[in-house]
Amino acid sequence: MDHKDFQIEVLGDAKIKSPLQAVDFISDDSTVAYPSDLKELNGYIKRGEPIPAFEQAGPRSRIFHDPAWSKAAILTAGGLCPGLNDVIKFLTRTLRSQYKVPMVYGIRYGYRGLIPDYKLEPMILDEDNIDDIHESGGSVLSSSRGRQDEETMVDTLVRMNINLLFCIGGDGTLRCAHDVARVIRDRKLAISVVCIPKTIDNDIGFIDKSFGFETAIYATELFVTAAHNEAEGAFNGIGLIKVMGRDSGFIAANATLANSHINYCLVPEKPFTLDGVGPSALLPNLEKRLLERRHAVIIVAEGAGQELFANHSSRTDASGNVLHDDIGLLLKERIIEYFKQKDMEVNLKYFDPSYTIRSVPARGTDAVFCTMLAQNAVHAAMSGRTDMVVGHWHDAFTHVPISLATRQRKKIDLKSQLWTSVSSTVRL
Amino acid sequence: MDHKDFQIEVLGDAKIKSPLQAVDFISDDSTVAYPSDLKELNGYIKRGEPIPAFEQAGPRSRIFHDPAWSKAAILTAGGLCPGLNDVIKFLTRTLRSQYKVPMVYGIRYGYRGLIPDYKLEPMILDEDNIDDIHESGGSVLSSSRGRQDEETMVDTLVRMNINLLFCIGGDGTLRCAHDVARVIRDRKLAISVVCIPKTIDNDIGFIDKSFGFETAIYATELFVTAAHNEAEGAFNGIGLIKVMGRDSGFIAANATLANSHINYCLVPEKPFTLDGVGPSALLPNLEKRLLERRHAVIIVAEGAGQELFANHSSRTDASGNVLHDDIGLLLKERIIEYFKQKDMEVNLKYFDPSYTIRSVPARGTDAVFCTMLAQNAVHAAMSGRTDMVVGHWHDAFTHVPISLATRQRKKIDLKSQLWTSVSSTVRL
Amino acid sequence: MDHKDFQIEVLGDAKIKSPLQAVDFISDDSTVAYPSDLKELNGYIKRGEPIPAFEQAGPRSRIFHDPAWSKAAILTAGGLCPGLNDVIKFLTRTLRSQYKVPMVYGIRYGYRGLIPDYKLEPMILDEDNIDDIHESGGSVLSSSRGRQDEETMVDTLVRMNINLLFCIGGDGTLRCAHDVARVIRDRKLAISVVCIPKTIDNDIGFIDKSFGFETAIYATELFVTAAHNEAEGAFNGIGLIKVMGRDSGFIAANATLANSHINYCLVPEKPFTLDGVGPSALLPNLEKRLLERRHAVIIVAEGAGQELFANHSSRTDASGNVLHDDIGLLLKERIIEYFKQKDMEVNLKYFDPSYTIRSVPARGTDAVFCTMLAQNAVHAAMSGRTDMVVGHWHDAFTHVPISLATRQRKKIDLKSQLWTSVSSTVRL
Amino acid sequence: MDHKDFQIEVLGDAKIKSPLQAVDFISDDSTVAYPSDLKELNGYIKRGEPIPAFEQAGPRSRIFHDPAWSKAAILTAGGLCPGLNDVIKFLTRTLRSQYKVPMVYGIRYGYRGLIPDYKLEPMILDEDNIDDIHESGGSVLSSSRGRQDEETMVDTLVRMNINLLFCIGGDGTLRCAHDVARVIRDRKLAISVVCIPKTIDNDIGFIDKSFGFETAIYATELFVTAAHNEAEGAFNGIGLIKVMGRDSGFIAANATLANSHINYCLVPEKPFTLDGVGPSALLPNLEKRLLERRHAVIIVAEGAGQELFANHSSRTDASGNVLHDDIGLLLKERIIEYFKQKDMEVNLKYFDPSYTIRSVPARGTDAVFCTMLAQNAVHAAMSGRTDMVVGHWHDAFTHVPISLATRQRKKIDLKSQLWTSVSSTVRL
Repeated sequence: MDHKDFQIEVLGDAKIKSPLQAVDFISDDSTVAYPSDLKELNGYIKRGEPIPAFEQAGPRSRIFHDPAWSKAAILTAGGLCPGLNDVIKFLTRTLRSQYKVPMVYGIRYGYRGLIPDYKLEPMILDEDNIDDIHESGGSVLSSSRGRQDEETMVDTLVRMNINLLFCIGGDGTLRCAHDVARVIRDRKLAISVVCIPKTIDNDIGFIDKSFGFETAIYATELFVTAAHNEAEGAFNGIGLIKVMGRDSGFIAANATLANSHINYCLVPEKPFTLDGVGPSALLPNLEKRLLERRHAVIIVAEGAGQELFANHSSRTDASGNVLHDDIGLLLKERIIEYFKQKDMEVNLKYFDPSYTIRSVPARGTDAVFCTMLAQNAVHAAMSGRTDMVVGHWHDAFTHVPISLATRQRKKIDLKSQLWTSVSSTVRL
Repeated sequence: MDHKDFQIEVLGDAKIKSPLQAVDFISDDSTVAYPSDLKELNGYIKRGEPIPAFEQAGPRSRIFHDPAWSKAAILTAGGLCPGLNDVIKFLTRTLRSQYKVPMVYGIRYGYRGLIPDYKLEPMILDEDNIDDIHESGGSVLSSSRGRQDEETMVDTLVRMNINLLFCIGGDGTLRCAHDVARVIRDRKLAISVVCIPKTIDNDIGFIDKSFGFETAIYATELFVTAAHNEAEGAFNGIGLIKVMGRDSGFIAANATLANSHINYCLVPEKPFTLDGVGPSALLPNLEKRLLERRHAVIIVAEGAGQELFANHSSRTDASGNVLHDDIGLLLKERIIEYFKQKDMEVNLKYFDPSYTIRSVPARGTDAVFCTMLAQNAVHAAMSGRTDMVVGHWHDAFTHVPISLATRQRKKIDLKSQLWTSVSSTVRL
Repeated sequence: MDHKDFQIEVLGDAKIKSPLQAVDFISDDSTVAYPSDLKELNGYIKRGEPIPAFEQAGPRSRIFHDPAWSKAAILTAGGLCPGLNDVIKFLTRTLRSQYKVPMVYGIRYGYRGLIPDYKLEPMILDEDNIDDIHESGGSVLSSSRGRQDEETMVDTLVRMNINLLFCIGGDGTLRCAHDVARVIRDRKLAISVVCIPKTIDNDIGFIDKSFGFETAIYATELFVTAAHNEAEGAFNGIGLIKVMGRDSGFIAANATLANSHINYCLVPEKPFTLDGVGPSALLPNLEKRLLERRHAVIIVAEGAGQELFANHSSRTDASGNVLHDDIGLLLKERIIEYFKQKDMEVNLKYFDPSYTIRSVPARGTDAVFCTMLAQNAVHAAMSGRTDMVVGHWHDAFTHVPISLATRQRKKIDLKSQLWTSVSSTVRL
Repeated sequence: MDHKDFQIEVLGDAKIKSPLQAVDFISDDSTVAYPSDLKELNGYIKRGEPIPAFEQAGPRSRIFHDPAWSKAAILTAGGLCPGLNDVIKFLTRTLRSQYKVPMVYGIRYGYRGLIPDYKLEPMILDEDNIDDIHESGGSVLSSSRGRQDEETMVDTLVRMNINLLFCIGGDGTLRCAHDVARVIRDRKLAISVVCIPKTIDNDIGFIDKSFGFETAIYATELFVTAAHNEAEGAFNGIGLIKVMGRDSGFIAANATLANSHINYCLVPEKPFTLDGVGPSALLPNLEKRLLERRHAVIIVAEGAGQELFANHSSRTDASGNVLHDDIGLLLKERIIEYFKQKDMEVNLKYFDPSYTIRSVPARGTDAVFCTMLAQNAVHAAMSGRTDMVVGHWHDAFTHVPISLATRQRKKIDLKSQLWTSVSSTVRL
């Protein structure tokens, strides 16, 4: 990784005085160092290389887009996530109340709303119709999966005179926004494309947390407690909970530490076997636990244990995400089968919280995070920055090039403090 | 139905002065009329028949069992239900603190705990170890399904000198308690068997509500809101929620009125078809709704639509309940198939709250109800009553013979105020 | 009480065929007996008197008001209560979707909105703008205290062509609606006035529960648990919670049974002293508890212990309710003073949940209750009934004349099953 | 600030092999840089000074204390905070299950439990009696305010053979632990003193967040929504909420962003006036808002506006914290008075959530944080570190000398991203 990977594209010189009052503006050379360990920092210094660092987010004293003639558009794409409505609310409020941008469109059903063939009229967002939306989960703009043709979408932006485009979505949404920004660059248009990264799995690279994740962890509590109560309530009771986590196990790992009734935490990053004699063989270990304690709780991320399927699938959904075989149902079957063969009574209860943990509204500090992401996205776009996402690093909000943010999915480092903690509280 | 069906068995004369102080005792002729409509009441009067009425529950000034030599046992059987721990807590507290019964056993894993072969040691319950249990869901005694041999169980009661047996459970549990009471009667033993009826489906006859039901309805809210948000968040989004309700749709019906985002409420009491042209054909109606509003929410009780299965199953579980084919998964498949044939995009999200709504602790007025049920169960048992359940009717607590309570499952009357309300808010 | 007190006023003959389809209509002689005890019922029969009974609520096959030319108005008066928005939503939905009443006004700020001088424009309510309101607490119509001139209000109703007036409010609101109905009667107008009784204290006569009460009890749980944790967390910790309950202690009594950490429950119905030696002297009893257990939790209804104030106040608020001296603060002061004199360390934490328990949305079965109250209020009004409230009695919805509902406040009967339960779980 | 201020005291060489298995140990030169801005980092490099950095927390391969002869003690001091029981649970579990420390004492009522005169027997903590404690708020060890004599406390530690002392508490607790560590040093004893900093106000220096704070923010939501509903529900309704925050306004500021219904956020860091004409005069601004919107919500930290009191108090509580005059009640009075003079009707509702937001259990990611703090505290103590607290900085857990952590209270920087966000959403 090179410090040049951290550079943000700007549409042009910021010549307009910001309309924001009584605000402490951020200077353009404010940065947040990517490494934090002294050894790593010293390595760069010794090698004479610039330390990789993010540009810091925040309001600039000079901006690029003239608010008076600006038109903004907001869209949400991909699956739901807690906090979508907070982000929509504060994008709108910051654009209208602070920058006095006269028109903010809400594009319906993600990128589809920019394709004329779908005949989806945009909403007009203002202070009144967004005032209470943060109280509800979901997205008032609705969403859709899949990408659309970037040339057609830029045609729409031009026709609607939109110069500020905000895309809230995951990996696929970001890549599509990157393509839109490329077309804009090729056509030499002055349209800022700024993304707010959304991933309930918390697995976007170079960003230490993503909005909605915190709320999702809070929402798992109900299910872990239910699984625990059901497991204790029956003879050799087993509570089995499947949670989201296609490529990374952050939800499973955090849920395990958040409600310490979980005995097994299975994540994509750490392979395991079902039978066998080794320390990573689930079923014999589970048998031992039941004999000792008469109940057990297992949490499994949907992307865990894919190597256990004979014909490992390679289907993808409309957003290009690999579709997994259902590890939850496999575990359910194999556990029941294993103990049936041993003639040992078990009572397995299966929990699939699925959409329930992602369609709740963001709460508390997670809502704070949404608010600040949205405000900083507007500051970035007004300053003329483009082809970027608003991130968070080391307690500060940052600008991250889309190409860097989509370079690789974040995964649990099995040597990290997080996994050290998890592995010390579970049996496998 | 005859007023004699309402008569409660008593072990013998209540000759002992109650140790309760500063209490307003209930006289033995306090009753609660079963019918409440004047026309029906007048019918009995005209025909010269006694009006059927429940004996009213409550503390009696004279009791049958001498607290000083009494030993009580409590067990929970069948599936979990909100409030089990409240009932256990207040059975124990009323026995020990009010009646000064010196020993209260908690029998582990339902009726199994009374069968020596299982080697399940009982817990000893006292004021301290029950003090906080009402804060948690589940059952501190654990539970099990299935009946056990009544002769062996009575042997155990005799060997342990237990003269007060409290059984918390559903239909199956009640029938088994009835058999235990019969053996006790045959052997001329002085053991009271008093049940607290448990059914999350709220379907026990001659009892207007059962504990835990209210909390379960509160717990459905999260899932209905999630289904609504997911439905609105996607193009032609459909939220499909399967809830408990083997033979009756009280949970589905109440959830529909509790969170008015539901458009279709499918219950066992009301047949429906999938295809076809009639007003009760689900799929064409759903298609119409999607064309009009682009989203829909469906709730289905697990026992609904069983007539739609080719080979209607007749398997039963360990408690003797009929095991149903999975109507939730059938609906999911058929809806997807239907719209695929029509080449119409739909996004269906399936929710199965299952155990989550039954393993939470009872709250608020539902916990109040548990407390009062438990207290009245103790009053009944101490007075020598047996082979009965504690019920609730017309705002009062009642004594109900087990044979009456198990005569027939309560179902939604499609002419009732409840269903009139539901049917006016849904489309089918 | 006489069965004539239960008679409902009707504006005229119901000649119009109801537009409701596929509904089981209620016949006009459906009733709900007021007494339920056989002894009491037999008393009436022996004396040859008709048994007092409520008219049963529900849709009638023939109605009085022609929906096509009807205009309805809804107002909320008095303090907030959980469920106001549910009631507003289902009044509107039933009027518009079922009866096809073309115009439903939402009157702003209670009766004020009917007084031209306040210049408060009514809202127009329809299916869309009410769709989500049940998710929020408060009242979308806002409220106000105090009565307004009934002649002026009827002038407004006439000017606006309103023939269906729905008033949601407490005792004061009901009395004012009664006066409006009287003016309407005097002027021989065909305007139905139907009330939905609102009292978070659950103290309206001849109605077994009022909407919002159940939710309020659920909402107290947080505070009782907090008080318990704070009491246990400190040396000789005392948690003191003041809850609503001006004239009756239903909230305090139910909260005590709902979360069994409370040791003292003080209600208006049961006098107590602070000092002294008797069994009802709070402070010496509290001292004993602290010496035994080192912590204690007290709940006090705002109307309790008013006799302890030297100059018992007789101020009233704008609705005519007596304003009480603050028993919570008095207790706080006197407890601290008492133990200071004894040189005994105590750590008292004071909780005043106040408005928090009444401004939450209604949930679960409480929301079900709101929905059904609203539907039945519309059925009653459309049938030409007036000067009445929709009530609930013995598991059925009823019609209650305003004059009967406001005759006397319901109070806790100290001989009831409720208080027997409470008194067996607390120390005083 | 100097990099030497970051150095951690160690009792002696770590010669014992850690009993932890399958763990990635942290090397002793792992650090976390204190500054993160490149400019600041470059400043140190240019001046040739070492960059100030925290030692990173985590398990060490070699430890100082021999687990086999170790005895640990845990105490909680000061006010309650969400997560105390999680920390107690995971201190105990890590000591016993991972390091196999045979004896863990729970000291009752804070430092008092180490003073023989109080006759407070310690609890013995093990895996079973701590298993469910994380589900409840409060502290199972109870707490107390105030310091005790350090010489006497060290006498007790010596007498009980305790070599690992864990103190969970705020500023005062930390200072007292520092004094205990000093006495230990003077007497050349081998006792590690490790603190877990507790402050619901999130205002401990050199630590980016403290446990319980996140949960507290979630808990404010209920009150902000209630205040909003009450404000909108009445004519010129004002919701006034007082929250904790003696010296810093982090709770008020975060609550403002978490539930964006708040119009005024008053914190200790930013002075304001009541009357007058300037932009920071609350009352005229509030009047303007009411005329425009008819309702307003105000949140005030308890330490805000102390300069408004004539005789600014200088009382302190048992922990040495300055006791403030009640700004909430002052505001309430002055607002009512102001509008009375203007003859303008207002309806003010006052909310004091106080202890309610601190006595709830920690949830979700906040509970994760508690777990990891506790585990790292044990790792630090076992390695022989002492006179330190476990902190968190830039996404990593750190070791912070007590003297550094107590040097200065953290306050809201009015130029920070946090306050920039807040000030853009409120009116003052």
